[in-house]
Amino acid sequence: MLNTRQAVLAEGLGTGILVAAVVGSGIAAQGLTHDVGLQLLINALSTVAALGVLIALLLPISGAHFNPAITLVAVIRGDIKRVLAVGYIVSQCVGAIIGAVLANTMFEHSAMSWASSGRSGYGQWTGEAVATAGLVLTVLLANRSHLPIIVPAWIGAAYFFTSSTSFANPAVTLGRAFTHSFSGIAWEDVPMFVIAQILGALAALVVVSLLASNKETA
Amino acid sequence: MLNTRQAVLAEGLGTGILVAAVVGSGIAAQGLTHDVGLQLLINALSTVAALGVLIALLLPISGAHFNPAITLVAVIRGDIKRVLAVGYIVSQCVGAIIGAVLANTMFEHSAMSWASSGRSGYGQWTGEAVATAGLVLTVLLANRSHLPIIVPAWIGAAYFFTSSTSFANPAVTLGRAFTHSFSGIAWEDVPMFVIAQILGALAALVVVSLLASNKETA
Amino acid sequence: MLNTRQAVLAEGLGTGILVAAVVGSGIAAQGLTHDVGLQLLINALSTVAALGVLIALLLPISGAHFNPAITLVAVIRGDIKRVLAVGYIVSQCVGAIIGAVLANTMFEHSAMSWASSGRSGYGQWTGEAVATAGLVLTVLLANRSHLPIIVPAWIGAAYFFTSSTSFANPAVTLGRAFTHSFSGIAWEDVPMFVIAQILGALAALVVVSLLASNKETA
Amino acid sequence: MLNTRQAVLAEGLGTGILVAAVVGSGIAAQGLTHDVGLQLLINALSTVAALGVLIALLLPISGAHFNPAITLVAVIRGDIKRVLAVGYIVSQCVGAIIGAVLANTMFEHSAMSWASSGRSGYGQWTGEAVATAGLVLTVLLANRSHLPIIVPAWIGAAYFFTSSTSFANPAVTLGRAFTHSFSGIAWEDVPMFVIAQILGALAALVVVSLLASNKETA
Repeated sequence: MLNTRQAVLAEGLGTGILVAAVVGSGIAAQGLTHDVGLQLLINALSTVAALGVLIALLLPISGAHFNPAITLVAVIRGDIKRVLAVGYIVSQCVGAIIGAVLANTMFEHSAMSWASSGRSGYGQWTGEAVATAGLVLTVLLANRSHLPIIVPAWIGAAYFFTSSTSFANPAVTLGRAFTHSFSGIAWEDVPMFVIAQILGALAALVVVSLLASNKETA
Repeated sequence: MLNTRQAVLAEGLGTGILVAAVVGSGIAAQGLTHDVGLQLLINALSTVAALGVLIALLLPISGAHFNPAITLVAVIRGDIKRVLAVGYIVSQCVGAIIGAVLANTMFEHSAMSWASSGRSGYGQWTGEAVATAGLVLTVLLANRSHLPIIVPAWIGAAYFFTSSTSFANPAVTLGRAFTHSFSGIAWEDVPMFVIAQILGALAALVVVSLLASNKETA
Repeated sequence: MLNTRQAVLAEGLGTGILVAAVVGSGIAAQGLTHDVGLQLLINALSTVAALGVLIALLLPISGAHFNPAITLVAVIRGDIKRVLAVGYIVSQCVGAIIGAVLANTMFEHSAMSWASSGRSGYGQWTGEAVATAGLVLTVLLANRSHLPIIVPAWIGAAYFFTSSTSFANPAVTLGRAFTHSFSGIAWEDVPMFVIAQILGALAALVVVSLLASNKETA
Repeated sequence: MLNTRQAVLAEGLGTGILVAAVVGSGIAAQGLTHDVGLQLLINALSTVAALGVLIALLLPISGAHFNPAITLVAVIRGDIKRVLAVGYIVSQCVGAIIGAVLANTMFEHSAMSWASSGRSGYGQWTGEAVATAGLVLTVLLANRSHLPIIVPAWIGAAYFFTSSTSFANPAVTLGRAFTHSFSGIAWEDVPMFVIAQILGALAALVVVSLLASNKETA
C-alpha cells in the first residue's frame, strides 16, 4: 500500500526533476551548438534518460505518473481514488514550476521568465494527441517492470516523429511556460496543447478496450 | 491463444505507428538540420525506439510481425495459419498507408503525396536482402523475451551499414511510397525492394536450418 | 563478504578506467569535430557506456562506488566500515590520477598537464549539487540489479541538464585536473566543485529519509 | 554441448556480419556527412547494435567469440579445446574478409580494395592494448546473460576514449584491411595492432587473477 504523503511528494519530486531535465538540457543545447537537430537530439536524450531513472526509482512509491493525463486515466479506470488524484495533480504542477525555476537558476537565467516560443496549429495539436495516446497505450499495455524503459522509449521516439516534439503531459506543458528558452511554450499556446493531450488520452482508452478485452469475438 | 480480430487489428495499428514514426521523424529531421548524417541518425533513433515499444506492447496480442516478410516466414514454418496470414498482411498494408497519411498530416503536408526519392541499383538491392535476412535470423534465433530490444537493434544497425537504409519490410516500403519526404521511395522502385526483401527472408531460412538443427554432424 | 584487498583494488581500477573514459573521449571528441554539442555528446556517451560496464563488472567485488561522495554516504549509513572507506577513497583518488595520465598517454599528450578550463559560478555549483544529489538518490533508491543501467542513465542525463556537465564525483574531479583538454578543470575550481558535491550528497540523504521511511504518516 | 560444425559456422557468420557492419556503416557515414565526429558516432552506434544482436543470437551456438584474442584467452584458460580454437580462428578470419567484401559490394565499391588509412604510433598501440584488455576483462567478469549488452557497451565506449577507435580484435583488423574506406587500416599497420591486442588480452588475464581469486589475502 502506498504511503499517501510520500506518494504525493514523489509525484512532485519526479515531475520537478523531469521538467528540470527538459528545460535545463534545452538551455544547455542552445549554448553548445547552432544545429537545431542536434539541440533537439541532446534535449531528447537527456529527457529520456532522466525520465527512465525517475520511473525506476519512484514507481514503487507513487506509481510514477508525473503527468495529470496519466493520473486522469487512472481515476477513470478506478486505479486510484479521486482525492489522491487531486493531490497528485497539484503536486505535479507545483513540481513542474519548481523544476523550471531550478533549471533557469542552474544556467543563471532569471529564475522565472515567460516563454515566447509559439507552438500551435492543427499539425502540432494532432501531434500532441498522437503522442499522449501512445503514452497512455504504453502505460496501460506494458508489463509494469518494463515501464522504466518503455515509457522513455515512447517519449524519445515521439520527440521526433510527432510535429510537436511530444510534450504529452499537461504539468510539463505548464512548467515549460516558465522558461524563456529552447523548450519553452508561450502561455497562449498552453490550453490547446492540454486539450489535445486529454483528447489523446481518452482516445487511447478506446483503443485499449478494443485491443485488450479478453472476450473472443471472431 | 490469440484473439483473431484483436491480432489483426494489432498488426495494423503497430505497422501504422511504425510507418508514422519512420515518415514523421524523417520529415522532422529535414526541417531541423541540413546535415544528412544527423537527419538519418534522428530518423533511425526515432524509428528504433518506436519499434521497440510496439513490439513490447503488441507481442502478446499478435506476435508483433508488422511485416509481410515475417508473416510469410511464419506461414512457411507452419507457425500461423494461411488465412490469418492473409488478414495480417492486408492489415499491415492498410496500416502502413494510414501511418504515412498521419505523419503527413501532423507536419501539415498534403495528406497523400507520392515519393520521388529514387532508390535502386544492385548495391541497394543487396542491402535490402542482407537487412531482411538478418531480421529474419534475429526473429527466429532470439529468445522471445529479447525481441523488443534485439529486433530494433538489428534495424538500427542496418539503417547505416546496409546501403539501402534497411527498409526490410514490404508493408513499410509500400507506406513510404505515400510521402514526398526524406524517407519516401518512388513507386517504380518499390517492386525490386520487395523482391529483394523476400529473397533475403528465404535465404535466412536456409541459414537458420544450417545453424539451428540439433543433429550432431561433425 | 568482500575480499578487502580486491575491493580496494577494484575501486582504483574502476575509477581509473572511468576517468580514462571521461578524459580520453573528451580529447578524441575535440579532435573529431568543431561542434561543441557533438563533442559533449560523444564525451557523455562514451563515459556513460564505460561507467555501465564498470559497475556491472565490479559491483560484486567492491560495490562499485568509484566515488568518494558515495563512499561517504555509505559510511554515514553504516553500510561500510570507516577504515575500509579510507582505503576506498585513497584508491579512488590514485586511480583517477592514473586514469587521466593513461588518457593523456593514449593521445600522445604530455602524460601530466594542468587543466585550464575555468568552471565556476553559482549556477555550476548548483548544478554539481543537483547532479550529486540525484546520483545519491539513484544509488539509494534503486534495485541493486538495476544499478549498471540506472546510474549511467542519471549521469548521462545530468551531463546536459545540469550547467556543470555533472562531474558529481570528487575523485573524478581531481583526476580531471590532470589534463589540459576538453574535460579538464582548473585546480582553483576543484574545491568548490567538491564542496557542492558533498552538500548535494547530504541533501539527498534528507530526501531519501522523507521518501523511503516505512512509517505511515498521513 | 556445442555442435562443432555449427559453432565454427556461427563464428564465421558472426565475425562476417560484424565486419560488414563496421565497414558498411563507415562507408555510409562518409557519404552522409562531412563531420568526422558524426561519422565516427554513426560508425560506432551501428557496430555496437550489430554486435549486441550477434552475441545474443549466437552465444548459445558458439559462445560468440568473433575474435581470435577471445578464443586465445579461452584456450589458455582451458575453456575450449585447441583444435576447435583453430577452427574458430580460421572461420573468424575468413568471415571477416567476406564481411568486408559484402560491405564493399553493398556500396558498389570494388569488392576488394586495400585500405590506405595509416594507423600507428605508441598512442594508438596503447589504445589497442587498453581496449582489448578491457574487452577480455568484460568477457571474463560479466554474467553470461549480460554479455549481449555489456560487450557492445565496452566497445562503444572504447571507440571514443581509446586513441585507436578500439579495433580490439585481430580478425576484424584483418577484415578492415580489405576496404579502401573510413574504417580501413593499411596492411603495414596490421601487425602492430594485432600484437598490441594480444598483449592487452594477456595483461587482462593478470588483472582478473588479482581481482577474482577467491582466496582471502588481506
